[in-house]
Amino acid sequence: MSMSNNRYEQGLLKLKEVEGSAADQALLALHKAHPDLARFCIEYPMGDIYSRSELSVKMREVASIAALTVLDLPLQLGIHIQAGKKVGLTKLEIKEIILQMSIFCGFPRAINAMLSASQILDV
Amino acid sequence: MSMSNNRYEQGLLKLKEVEGSAADQALLALHKAHPDLARFCIEYPMGDIYSRSELSVKMREVASIAALTVLDLPLQLGIHIQAGKKVGLTKLEIKEIILQMSIFCGFPRAINAMLSASQILDV
Amino acid sequence: MSMSNNRYEQGLLKLKEVEGSAADQALLALHKAHPDLARFCIEYPMGDIYSRSELSVKMREVASIAALTVLDLPLQLGIHIQAGKKVGLTKLEIKEIILQMSIFCGFPRAINAMLSASQILDV
Amino acid sequence: MSMSNNRYEQGLLKLKEVEGSAADQALLALHKAHPDLARFCIEYPMGDIYSRSELSVKMREVASIAALTVLDLPLQLGIHIQAGKKVGLTKLEIKEIILQMSIFCGFPRAINAMLSASQILDV
Amino acid sequence: MSMSNNRYEQGLLKLKEVEGSAADQALLALHKAHPDLARFCIEYPMGDIYSRSELSVKMREVASIAALTVLDLPLQLGIHIQAGKKVGLTKLEIKEIILQMSIFCGFPRAINAMLSASQILDV
Amino acid sequence: MSMSNNRYEQGLLKLKEVEGSAADQALLALHKAHPDLARFCIEYPMGDIYSRSELSVKMREVASIAALTVLDLPLQLGIHIQAGKKVGLTKLEIKEIILQMSIFCGFPRAINAMLSASQILDV
Repeated sequence: MSMSNNRYEQGLLKLKEVEGSAADQALLALHKAHPDLARFCIEYPMGDIYSRSELSVKMREVASIAALTVLDLPLQLGIHIQAGKKVGLTKLEIKEIILQMSIFCGFPRAINAMLSASQILDV
Repeated sequence: MSMSNNRYEQGLLKLKEVEGSAADQALLALHKAHPDLARFCIEYPMGDIYSRSELSVKMREVASIAALTVLDLPLQLGIHIQAGKKVGLTKLEIKEIILQMSIFCGFPRAINAMLSASQILDV
Repeated sequence: MSMSNNRYEQGLLKLKEVEGSAADQALLALHKAHPDLARFCIEYPMGDIYSRSELSVKMREVASIAALTVLDLPLQLGIHIQAGKKVGLTKLEIKEIILQMSIFCGFPRAINAMLSASQILDV
Repeated sequence: MSMSNNRYEQGLLKLKEVEGSAADQALLALHKAHPDLARFCIEYPMGDIYSRSELSVKMREVASIAALTVLDLPLQLGIHIQAGKKVGLTKLEIKEIILQMSIFCGFPRAINAMLSASQILDV
Repeated sequence: MSMSNNRYEQGLLKLKEVEGSAADQALLALHKAHPDLARFCIEYPMGDIYSRSELSVKMREVASIAALTVLDLPLQLGIHIQAGKKVGLTKLEIKEIILQMSIFCGFPRAINAMLSASQILDV
Repeated sequence: MSMSNNRYEQGLLKLKEVEGSAADQALLALHKAHPDLARFCIEYPMGDIYSRSELSVKMREVASIAALTVLDLPLQLGIHIQAGKKVGLTKLEIKEIILQMSIFCGFPRAINAMLSASQILDV
């Protein structure tokens, strides 16, 4: 088995560990649009980065939720909010990360992210 | 004593707890340029947000370092890298947060942040 | 009554002065998602900033419409277009601010904002 | 006939050469919202810039698709994907430009653009 | 004389009316780097947009200072701060526009702009 | 030899083909700051993406220069301007790509990029 497959297999394992069904659906749609980009999304973010031991997956999700709030990317934010829950962040903590982002990206983007988060966390 | 002063006093205490001398210098320069903005920077980010108990200051710094990396804001990133160290993030963890951001904001901004971080952490 | 409540009361008064029903609906949705963020949105932007006498509310709305156009934030742009009308900006002036932004943020974002503005102003 | 009209006429010719029906619809909607902005969109981007001989229209579309991917502007990206096809870029090349952007703007924006591109190119 | 020259002449007149020596220096450097881009910068922003009567130049500078603060573009912000002064905005008003932007783009970009503004206005 | 090393070796070959000494210096500085990020920058952008045959390296550099102009990232823009020259783009073409970006990201970022480009191309 090749090393390249190792990165993919490792990424797939990490994906199952941290992310839920929302990621599966998004990846399926992406696979139809461009199989290589879907593969790269598993190999690099999950296989190369998330699999490293230098940071806990819980802290990784804190960072990802923060980044996706300030970048105003609701689709990927939704996936990482679900991932955050899966790795042990509470609903209160996830909303608090988004609230804190109002300092760095202003109120409108924090509001957009909070409304998205509520649709996932408050149902 | 007024509530408004309470927010400022509370913010100042939190600032001393989480941030170091880099923040002091930046605030002094800002105070000269616009005293009210300097005061608001203590009251809202530190007094209102950072003082809340919903998230540990360690996790708050993970989120702040992530946000400032993707927003490409080196001055404030430097302040929060020092704050991160002060509240218990290791050098390895801080660099790992920045590395992870390459997923969300691309390599150039992650590289810029890593070079800034290295100037603070590797001396 | 506490000073903190003063900022909220002051912010609420300013909100009623400058913004219309679109802001009310947005704040209600936000209040359900995160009551504290909804409160902060009244205390800081409206209570602390918009209530200051250094700039007329008309000029404030010129600045807000400009900012929200270049940031490509249609929800909040819609609210401030209605606020602009309420404080005395004409339809022609509001569209002219958006047109001018093509200089600073390029044509696509100016076009997006103009189409949003037209849905509010041309009905 | 005035020079100003020359820029408009020249821009209209260039528009017909490089862009398709998607641009026509978008321009019609914009013309209703603000006729002058619609005219400027033909005079400057098409009349002044795209009409210059310093770069082939094929290379111009490579640059436009790249820019609109990293800026996360799906409406205008869709127009330039169709323009890219019209001036000779293959489906494979257009998707490859978007894939490459993951390096510079991160995976989420590249994914958003690829999903948009697939809806236009894979039907 | 051609219409195209009219736009340039008109733009140059408007430039002299609203902007000061900082713009002259920036345009000279740009002219050396790319004469056509320097010409377009006079024809479109100044000749086509700023010359329109739909908005006062004072309000135009409010909008420009707001936009350049949230976009974090210090070189052009400096030019428009000087232009704002020239067309009648007070130092207090200019700083207040920048302060207000903390609502929309967060504190770090407002701080960067305020420090830049102070270097121009407080000497 | 492992597959992982293949991606690195392949990336290094591609780097030597398209980029010049500016990239070498930047990579050396990055290697000191974070060796793994330096390695990832060769493996993914160069080894995985630039090595694909779906797009000519010349078109790849058109896309990269466009992206780095609209993202306002002067360090990496400089590297890709030199890469563009190396793979056959003329000075005139490189400046024309930057000029065209004024359509999508506004004049200030196009000006910043043109001034950077001139420092590299006009010496």
